[in-house]
Amino acid sequence: MALGRDSQKHRVVIVGAGFGGLWAVKHLKGACVDITLIDQRNHHLFQPLLYQVATASLAPSEIAWPIRSMLHDRKDVTTILATVTGVDAASCTVRLGDGSTVSYDTLLLATGARDSYFGHDDWEPLAPGLKTIEDATAIRSKVLRAFEEAERETDAARREALLTFAIVGAGPTGVELAGTIADLARDTLPRDFRAIDTRKTKVLLIEAGPKVLSGYPDDLSQYAKGALEKLGVEVSLGAAVTGIERDAITFGGHRVEAGTILWAAGVRASPAAEWLGVPADRSGRLIVEPDLSVPGHSNIFAVGDTVSVTTPEGSPVPGIAPAAKQEGAFVAETIRRRISGKSGHRSFHYRHEGSLAQIGKRKAVIDFGWIKLRGAIAWWLWGIAHIYFLVGVRSRLSVALNWLWIYLRNQRVARLITQPAGESGVE
Amino acid sequence: MALGRDSQKHRVVIVGAGFGGLWAVKHLKGACVDITLIDQRNHHLFQPLLYQVATASLAPSEIAWPIRSMLHDRKDVTTILATVTGVDAASCTVRLGDGSTVSYDTLLLATGARDSYFGHDDWEPLAPGLKTIEDATAIRSKVLRAFEEAERETDAARREALLTFAIVGAGPTGVELAGTIADLARDTLPRDFRAIDTRKTKVLLIEAGPKVLSGYPDDLSQYAKGALEKLGVEVSLGAAVTGIERDAITFGGHRVEAGTILWAAGVRASPAAEWLGVPADRSGRLIVEPDLSVPGHSNIFAVGDTVSVTTPEGSPVPGIAPAAKQEGAFVAETIRRRISGKSGHRSFHYRHEGSLAQIGKRKAVIDFGWIKLRGAIAWWLWGIAHIYFLVGVRSRLSVALNWLWIYLRNQRVARLITQPAGESGVE
Repeated sequence: MALGRDSQKHRVVIVGAGFGGLWAVKHLKGACVDITLIDQRNHHLFQPLLYQVATASLAPSEIAWPIRSMLHDRKDVTTILATVTGVDAASCTVRLGDGSTVSYDTLLLATGARDSYFGHDDWEPLAPGLKTIEDATAIRSKVLRAFEEAERETDAARREALLTFAIVGAGPTGVELAGTIADLARDTLPRDFRAIDTRKTKVLLIEAGPKVLSGYPDDLSQYAKGALEKLGVEVSLGAAVTGIERDAITFGGHRVEAGTILWAAGVRASPAAEWLGVPADRSGRLIVEPDLSVPGHSNIFAVGDTVSVTTPEGSPVPGIAPAAKQEGAFVAETIRRRISGKSGHRSFHYRHEGSLAQIGKRKAVIDFGWIKLRGAIAWWLWGIAHIYFLVGVRSRLSVALNWLWIYLRNQRVARLITQPAGESGVE
Repeated sequence: MALGRDSQKHRVVIVGAGFGGLWAVKHLKGACVDITLIDQRNHHLFQPLLYQVATASLAPSEIAWPIRSMLHDRKDVTTILATVTGVDAASCTVRLGDGSTVSYDTLLLATGARDSYFGHDDWEPLAPGLKTIEDATAIRSKVLRAFEEAERETDAARREALLTFAIVGAGPTGVELAGTIADLARDTLPRDFRAIDTRKTKVLLIEAGPKVLSGYPDDLSQYAKGALEKLGVEVSLGAAVTGIERDAITFGGHRVEAGTILWAAGVRASPAAEWLGVPADRSGRLIVEPDLSVPGHSNIFAVGDTVSVTTPEGSPVPGIAPAAKQEGAFVAETIRRRISGKSGHRSFHYRHEGSLAQIGKRKAVIDFGWIKLRGAIAWWLWGIAHIYFLVGVRSRLSVALNWLWIYLRNQRVARLITQPAGESGVE
């Protein structure tokens, strides 16, 4: 394909319009470069709230925005909807799924991560993960359908299994899924069903490690565990999952029948390291230089969930949105400096702005480092912060409206069971 | 399955939670009956605005609401998510997809209609229709993807084909789809693309009959045609479609390359008449008695798009939401009278409350019978009426907010390309 842009300018190609890629674009505003932004989706996704789509609290379009619309006033940016299949560093080109290529002077790989089943890829269809809008609407349908099937089930054991939800992994996503499913069952659904008492729903949160929210200080983890248990969530720590079948999960030596099993236990980086044939860590994350460039390729950078970065103190930079944004902005600044001929080596320094996780409808934990918050005040701050970080006034108003409805009326607005095209209803 | 409700009461089974079925439930409030409401979807759909989901203007959850949540305070109603596969009138049972049965004393079939391709079922995958939320999100993805592909296409003829949208059928759905796609291309998208000028998009509206909006008075039809043409829509009347291929359509002797072909040309009733082995019209619609009962089955009624009803003046009752609601309410009243032992024959009389159709962003036509409206004032009335008819304050606020954004900023909020599960991105 012919890009046909001003070929005099330095060409920056950015792969991935997540937080890392998009923040690099933002911070290249006004720089004398031509930017091509490639993503396999047409939308930027606000992943921190994806679990709210999976639990019928928000609509997909409230947390996802068309990339080219977000960048409509950036005439220096060309947005391409395409899947990248490889990088040819020798010819400085990126290869797309349709066989065409895009040339770069500087390349930024911000290609993210997907769920990892630690060698048990057969578990994937049985215990879906949460990475895309489609994942979220599929999980939403699965969760809501479990209650529908339980309502019609006459066998008591089978009904109990249908009302058992097992969530593997007690990181933020697992904690937030567990808390919100518990809320859904306790507050939103009870009055809608006739044959079942949805308050008897079992939510199991299964974690191989010694605590929930492993990246948080111990007292907040303890608090989060207690708050989940008050919501009725059964938290199992130090319990490795050893088997997943259709409608049953084995962990810590127990086998439990569960109609819905969700996976939030770990990620595997995109194949960016494979594309370049450079070293990666056990999770496939590209090991970058202190300036976030790829070893041996000074004009290729990588940021976000697809890289492994360590702080000068030796601790890993967490795989969260603020880290990806900071990395994207840092690379943008490096590109600006190089274009203007400035020399000197720069190293990326991660500033931890805080960790936030919601636990059900009225509680949250926040670790700002200098202060730790929990409970209702943390929940309000969590809500305000997330509304602030959404894109555009319309999304903010709309999400605020939906949260108000959940808060005041326990109504969740997006309780839709939908099927992929071609499947005809339920049987 | 065991329904386990109070078996003393008269059992009313209602199949279909569209306008007809749901309004029957509403009007049975307080009656001494046990109601079972069966639908193959978990949601009631506000079909008059489905084209707005297909054109990225509204989110699915703004026009669809969980049925059991809408009826949560109706302890006399049991909601079942299931597909009905047949009726056994001899044993007074309805058969479900899983092989179980539900017994009734009185049955109401409100099972609606689907798209009809007039014997050309092979056209269905090439020219999708608009009946369900999944149809709408699939059409939305198809329309948005056409612009994405055009942006990257270097062959001029192919690019023109990708920017050609053909809509078959100029009833309200066809007119509203054509007008909104024209708006999308003219107002929303231009500044987002770099290689293409989306204002050069061709929208073709193809109608076999002699006018657009065939049910409307001639002057409103004329006005609607002119208003569509001002938006750049090419309207072809008296043009029967004789061929549809992948990316091309033949009508009125012409073959035009069009990357997107949408079907709004006709409907075929649900198989309700087949289930009962009773007479149907050419569109498969059950021909009911003046009291909306099924001939030969005085305890079975049918309403909405699955029946053919004629007014005493001999004109057909139109297949629109107000007609289905009136029919549902009428059957509810008949059931009430029968239970309380009142005799006397009643006939359904249709009151035409008005016809409304939107034409692009700022125009509409309304025929109230006693007054005809067009243009901006009709558009405002159209908007207010539709917001009024939505379910719940939250949906009303949310839709009003989205329409405000379209009106003031030309931003359409739900521009998401999504894939059915299992398909991996674009190629």
